[in-house]
Amino acid sequence: MIKVLVWCENIQNKTQEDVIAVYPEGMHNTIANFLREDPDISVEVATLDDPNCGITEEKIANIDVVLWWGHVGHNKVPDDIVEILYTNVVKRGMGIMCLHSAHYSKIFKRLMGTSCSLHIPPPGLGAEKLWTLLPGHPIAQGIPNPVEIETEECYNEFFDIPQPDELVFNAAFVNCGSFRAGAAYHRGRGKVFYFQPGHETVPVYRQKEIQDIIFNAVYWANNKTKNK
Amino acid sequence: MIKVLVWCENIQNKTQEDVIAVYPEGMHNTIANFLREDPDISVEVATLDDPNCGITEEKIANIDVVLWWGHVGHNKVPDDIVEILYTNVVKRGMGIMCLHSAHYSKIFKRLMGTSCSLHIPPPGLGAEKLWTLLPGHPIAQGIPNPVEIETEECYNEFFDIPQPDELVFNAAFVNCGSFRAGAAYHRGRGKVFYFQPGHETVPVYRQKEIQDIIFNAVYWANNKTKNK
Amino acid sequence: MIKVLVWCENIQNKTQEDVIAVYPEGMHNTIANFLREDPDISVEVATLDDPNCGITEEKIANIDVVLWWGHVGHNKVPDDIVEILYTNVVKRGMGIMCLHSAHYSKIFKRLMGTSCSLHIPPPGLGAEKLWTLLPGHPIAQGIPNPVEIETEECYNEFFDIPQPDELVFNAAFVNCGSFRAGAAYHRGRGKVFYFQPGHETVPVYRQKEIQDIIFNAVYWANNKTKNK
Amino acid sequence: MIKVLVWCENIQNKTQEDVIAVYPEGMHNTIANFLREDPDISVEVATLDDPNCGITEEKIANIDVVLWWGHVGHNKVPDDIVEILYTNVVKRGMGIMCLHSAHYSKIFKRLMGTSCSLHIPPPGLGAEKLWTLLPGHPIAQGIPNPVEIETEECYNEFFDIPQPDELVFNAAFVNCGSFRAGAAYHRGRGKVFYFQPGHETVPVYRQKEIQDIIFNAVYWANNKTKNK
Repeated sequence: MIKVLVWCENIQNKTQEDVIAVYPEGMHNTIANFLREDPDISVEVATLDDPNCGITEEKIANIDVVLWWGHVGHNKVPDDIVEILYTNVVKRGMGIMCLHSAHYSKIFKRLMGTSCSLHIPPPGLGAEKLWTLLPGHPIAQGIPNPVEIETEECYNEFFDIPQPDELVFNAAFVNCGSFRAGAAYHRGRGKVFYFQPGHETVPVYRQKEIQDIIFNAVYWANNKTKNK
Repeated sequence: MIKVLVWCENIQNKTQEDVIAVYPEGMHNTIANFLREDPDISVEVATLDDPNCGITEEKIANIDVVLWWGHVGHNKVPDDIVEILYTNVVKRGMGIMCLHSAHYSKIFKRLMGTSCSLHIPPPGLGAEKLWTLLPGHPIAQGIPNPVEIETEECYNEFFDIPQPDELVFNAAFVNCGSFRAGAAYHRGRGKVFYFQPGHETVPVYRQKEIQDIIFNAVYWANNKTKNK
Repeated sequence: MIKVLVWCENIQNKTQEDVIAVYPEGMHNTIANFLREDPDISVEVATLDDPNCGITEEKIANIDVVLWWGHVGHNKVPDDIVEILYTNVVKRGMGIMCLHSAHYSKIFKRLMGTSCSLHIPPPGLGAEKLWTLLPGHPIAQGIPNPVEIETEECYNEFFDIPQPDELVFNAAFVNCGSFRAGAAYHRGRGKVFYFQPGHETVPVYRQKEIQDIIFNAVYWANNKTKNK
Repeated sequence: MIKVLVWCENIQNKTQEDVIAVYPEGMHNTIANFLREDPDISVEVATLDDPNCGITEEKIANIDVVLWWGHVGHNKVPDDIVEILYTNVVKRGMGIMCLHSAHYSKIFKRLMGTSCSLHIPPPGLGAEKLWTLLPGHPIAQGIPNPVEIETEECYNEFFDIPQPDELVFNAAFVNCGSFRAGAAYHRGRGKVFYFQPGHETVPVYRQKEIQDIIFNAVYWANNKTKNK
């Protein structure tokens, strides 16, 4: 059993009509619900609305993989929560997946050591193709090449991240935009995966191929040994 | 079920007394036998004694991971056999593990694009410690750090390989010797793992930790998808 | 003084009107001529028309960096010439830059250990933007981000190369095409740079930014020490 | 002209007899003095004794490469000084070299995103060999393989750093110890080099090969363009 925590700031999910229209149940629940279809994965959710962001040392000590989505509320996450996440990744080997605008979350910047800034040239939204660069990587197994996304936010280089240990996916957007969309890292004993799709106003987390990639990444990020 | 082929040139195994003393059943059988204890792995063996090296396109098309041990007989492997192996790794996604002196096998040199030469300073044999550099890597799961090997051949840098995608283990030997001992690569759709321990006159393949690493590497190198 | 050899197969340059229209002097001469403007670089050219491809062991032993352009004539280059190039890169530390369709040259495939195949989806030609992923890399110094190319051949993933040691540039094309366009490798003692722009029917080698990248790459690939 | 700042905490240099015996002029001055022999390098020094650690935004804005040595005083460096260094590396492209015990400096941990912890098994001090893994790397030019160091502190894996972009040197110590001793990274627009030799009680910075490596690394870390 892989124990997953899906975390979402849950701000725009409550206040912004175009987000509510796409994810009425809240993005974290969208993600949690499709993960729950796998009987080998158990899923909890937590948000900024929970006391202490829904995160305690005791709770995290029992989690194998965290999925993190944040955007307008990055600074509402207290530094001591970030340290709990960081320590569990680096020292205990917990996996973490930072989704879309979580490129700018405190925990991702902490783990990368760079600014993690990026560009969003006009148009803000457009078609995306997600290209597999490592067809033998566990995260790419069974994924078509390319994955076509009808509409996504046009993230663009220069994306200020360290060179990934494994650059699994590269995204291309309208107007010859380019972005490292699926980047895998070792950090201490843990694994980190950044995955770009997931803008709050488009139903990309309902797309089968995106769900398959997230499933693959959960299995990849989980590094429990037989011995444990 | 992961379908494994253990290949060994089987020359010194038959003619050299100090090798026969250590591996009377033949190294390939030593390796095959411990792998067979896992009910999820099926194992075949093949050697230079078999017609066509025991390798045909039909047979290889059904193999998930090849383990390759060669030393004095590298040039006895015909080029068309090497091309079958190469094509199955790069185009079909078969995994391959090159063991010890197989650093100089035709297939490893073909996949690396470098000379794959190394140095063996005196003494030829000595104590080794195998250090884990990526504790979160699947191949390192459950492996003590370091693994202590009583006696091994003292391989040394400069080892002319491309920078590994993931340098999992580093070996240190007596007299401050150093060697990249566990090196993981993507090549096309397949995965390649070079693993240094395995000199023919020492019983290293009977050591539990070495067997555990080889088990881990078999699972890592196998990239069958759920879809297949 | 950096001693450069610009090699070109020089086939389409002689027979194909749309190539002659763009590069009447021959591509190799276009490249050689702009490199010659740097007084610290000396340049020779060679082609398939020269005896032995214009390559001998004595001549290559004195070259610091080779630029290689080939397309329809890859198989006209004898294997022993490829071995001379290979040995000088890996054993002596000569730099080599493989340009555009030289992704499929014998020497590039030899150094990569993969098939080096790629896709060219429709349209064959279109606009390209070349994005810098490593702004601190010597090859990216002084280069605008992106470099806009009016028309190039639309190379696309999956490009079957090993993960670069340094992925300096990524190209995006019309219709959300994506390609690893500037890939840097260590191979043995030498350095290898693959650079995608350079289709024979477009004047990309006359574009200032492309010339600047090639200049930077010549300096990067040259690894003469002060001691030598 | 490459503008270098050599920074040292300058604590043990003043209070500890065995350090004073080896570096009576202070380590920073030892390093600064040999760098000053190159007319293309200008050198300043700064220490914890200077107001504000000798670091201001104005001063750093004019520096190309910082060399940083710290040990018992890491926590005496204020966080805002660390941010000045960090911003200049990542945003402006300043190079930084973290020496020996500076593996645990705030700035190195900030740039790595990991704990940067390591082990020091007994004996504390012993012989070291420094092996070149990338003979074509600019930092390895002209350096013998191995470099033999009579006595150094026995740093050992697991060294909790991200996989280097380029692992240039690997150290081996007595008793089969192993350590990634020369690790090169891109971080944003800047370059980072970690270099292990430099214990305060041994005269390793007076050794010619070590000085040559530091020279090479200064040139490598400086990324001024011709355009600037």
